Parts: sequence; structure tokens; C-alpha cells
Amino acid sequence: MYDGSGYHGWQVQENAVTVQEKIQDAIEKILSVRENIVGCSRTDSGVHANMFCFNMRTDKEIDTSKIVRSLNAVLPEDISVISCEEADFNFHARYDCTSKEYKYLIWNDKSRNPFLTGRALHYPGEIDIDLLNEEAKSFLGTHDFSSFCAADSSVEDKTRTVKNIGFEKNGKLIEFKIEADGFLYNMVRIIVGTLLDVNSGKIERGKIEEIINSKDRKSAGKTAAACGLYLNIVNYNK
Amino acid sequence: MYDGSGYHGWQVQENAVTVQEKIQDAIEKILSVRENIVGCSRTDSGVHANMFCFNMRTDKEIDTSKIVRSLNAVLPEDISVISCEEADFNFHARYDCTSKEYKYLIWNDKSRNPFLTGRALHYPGEIDIDLLNEEAKSFLGTHDFSSFCAADSSVEDKTRTVKNIGFEKNGKLIEFKIEADGFLYNMVRIIVGTLLDVNSGKIERGKIEEIINSKDRKSAGKTAAACGLYLNIVNYNK
Repeated sequence: MYDGSGYHGWQVQENAVTVQEKIQDAIEKILSVRENIVGCSRTDSGVHANMFCFNMRTDKEIDTSKIVRSLNAVLPEDISVISCEEADFNFHARYDCTSKEYKYLIWNDKSRNPFLTGRALHYPGEIDIDLLNEEAKSFLGTHDFSSFCAADSSVEDKTRTVKNIGFEKNGKLIEFKIEADGFLYNMVRIIVGTLLDVNSGKIERGKIEEIINSKDRKSAGKTAAACGLYLNIVNYNK
Repeated sequence: MYDGSGYHGWQVQENAVTVQEKIQDAIEKILSVRENIVGCSRTDSGVHANMFCFNMRTDKEIDTSKIVRSLNAVLPEDISVISCEEADFNFHARYDCTSKEYKYLIWNDKSRNPFLTGRALHYPGEIDIDLLNEEAKSFLGTHDFSSFCAADSSVEDKTRTVKNIGFEKNGKLIEFKIEADGFLYNMVRIIVGTLLDVNSGKIERGKIEEIINSKDRKSAGKTAAACGLYLNIVNYNK
């Protein structure tokens, strides 16, 4: 679990502080050895995780019942380890993942919410939840999501299967959730941005299928801000 | 609405940054005049507000439909103004308040929640909600709350009427709420601390009434951390 506000995403990179680096630092402090860890996802700069899974191979003996507490004692306050268990030697946190759910938070009020600064998109205009839920249905199923992938992505196969999608409103807080077998670079943020463009009238209603079929990033809407995005659930069901 | 983490409470004081000062600064920027504002409560250092009311008397003409947006544009991100309306000349945000509700958040899990750092008490041990709700009932009604008031308070009449009190559990998040016609200095935090001391066995069960009757701060439990406390509702019903 981590608040990604202060990090340049998960993945280690030069000249930028990342969550992976902080966890590897913590592990090094405890085990006195630098191990590489493998994350289930490469979250972007500013993106959060309510659930996140990583694996590590090590020759060191680890007491899985104690390491969680030891790690939390040396990790920064915006990262928290929840549990640790021994896995098969071949377990891979990213490749073995069967589906993921992302959540996107929108604070829908004229005034900002000081408790959600950096943790939700502030959208002051009206949002028609019923319209967006109707439009969102077009994403369900298996599609080539090229239109909803950042143009600089090098992934070849852009076919993904969306299993669940929808918005829920709780007072002024709107929660968007999407579950799929995998996600392309910026996919959730472009889907949310496009749906908000439909809400504002910038994109015509009933056009999502057409946008998907165009396989052209330019036909979709803007990329919604990173701060509202949370990796929410990671599944390893066979 | 404000996240109190970065402030020494509401009330202006020398050599410390407060919420009142920040709002007065913002008003001065917009109206070009320094006005004193009167808050409904003096929240402590680190205490938050989901709702807060202040009044201001001014000779300046104010467009109440526009000032909210103007204030939010110049206020820091951890303070947000929700609404503004004209009141009777004699309206007083503190004296006219008929009741307030405070909320206290407890994150009840072995691992901390990075999204609640500075915004909830992290309590790793088990909490018996049913026991605490049973014990909390003893606070209901009109009592002299001297035992639940910081020893350095100068208030003379320490009689207050508690109208509602109770804990609710949502997953790992526990919400304590208390409504009263008024609160003494540190009253909510000492009530929460005392109930948590009953939970841990440090204070015997069934002793709350006795502690109230002792009118002695020393008989009650510890003062729970400020970071979990939120002024939640402010009522002005006649």
C-alpha cells in the first residue's frame, strides 16, 4: 500500500525517487543484502496503490511472520507493507497476475477537498453518473485498446479484456472502478478522461465503440490526472 | 474544511501558523482590509475539520456568490471554503452554536495506512467495538466533565450534555462520533483515550461513571493523539 504523491512511480529509475527503490533500501537495511524485487505493475508518477504485490528471490533466511513489522519500521510513512508469504520459486508478481482492478477517485464539488489533495481529481462541474455508466459499458469485453494507450508505448499486442467497469457516487465523491486482465500504458487515465469528455459534451455520446475501432489515440479524450488513480486489487486466481 | 496537520490549531497565536491566520490573510488579499474572524471552535494543533463555521463583520461590500471561489484561489490547498452567506449582525459562530459533533478516526490494523498518516490514530491491537459502545453509554446525558478536561483549562462550568456517542467499524477503519452541546479542552481526546484504556484492560470495565463522578483528570485515561480528531458537524438549530 502506498501514497504515490511523493514518488516517480514504482519502477526504479535514475535521478528519481521510486517506491521500488525505497522498498529495496528497506530490505537492504534488514537483510544486509541488496535484492532486486519484481512488482506486479509499473504505476506512473503520482499514482497510488491500495494493494500491490511484489516478489523477491533471496538466499537469506526470512521469518515471514516478522519481516512485515521490520520493514514498516524502516520504510517511509507513505509506504506500508501488509503481508509476506513464501511463494513457489517460479512465482512472478507481474506475469502470474490474472487480473487487476484500478480505482479512480473524483471529488465532484465546487470547492476542493483538502483531504484529497493529490489523491483525487477535483472536478467542479456536474457529472451525469447514469450517462457515464451507460457509456462505460462499451469498454466491456475484449478489444484492441490502441486508442486508449499512450502514443509512446512499445507494447505490440494491445488487446485486453475488460471484465467490470462502472462509476459509483457517495455524496461528493465519485469512484470509478475497472477490472481487466491487463492494462496498457495510461489506459485507465485515458478511459476516465474520455468519459469525462463525454460528460462535458466535448465528445459526442454513443461514440466509444467508434473510438475503440479507430485504434487511434487521437480520437480518444484527454489523459486524466495521475493523482486520482489507485491500483486497487491484484488477483492471482488460476 | 481543513487538514490541520500543518497548523497549530485554529486560533491565531504568536510565532505559530494557524488556520485562522491563513484565512484572514486570504480575506485581506481579496478585500484589501484586515478583518478579525470568529471561529466556532478552537481546534488544537493537528486537529482537522470536516465542517467549520466562522463569522466576520465588515464594512466592505461582499458578493457572497463569488467570494468562496476567490478565497479558495488564494488559500493553501489544505484549507477549503465551502459556502458563504450573510448573517444577522449579532450572529456569533461560537456562542450561537447549539451543538457540535466530533469524529475520531482509528486505523485498526497491524500495518499503518499511508493514506491516513496524520489523519487517524494507528492502533495495531484488537479493539472490542461492542465493549466500547457499551462503556461509551455512560457518557450520555448531562455531567460535570472535569475528569475529561485538560488540567490547565480555566473554564469554570464543566457541565456538558452528551447527546450521541458511539463507535462504528468499516473494515479496518473505526469511526468514533460524539455529539454534545459543547466540549471542554481535550474532552474528546481524553474520552477516546480512556475508552482505549478500557479496551486494553488498563482501566477496569464499568468504571466510567465512577471516573466522571471523581471529577479528577487523573482518574481518566490518556489523551488520544490529536491527528485522529475531526470537528465534523456544527449545528445552529434553535
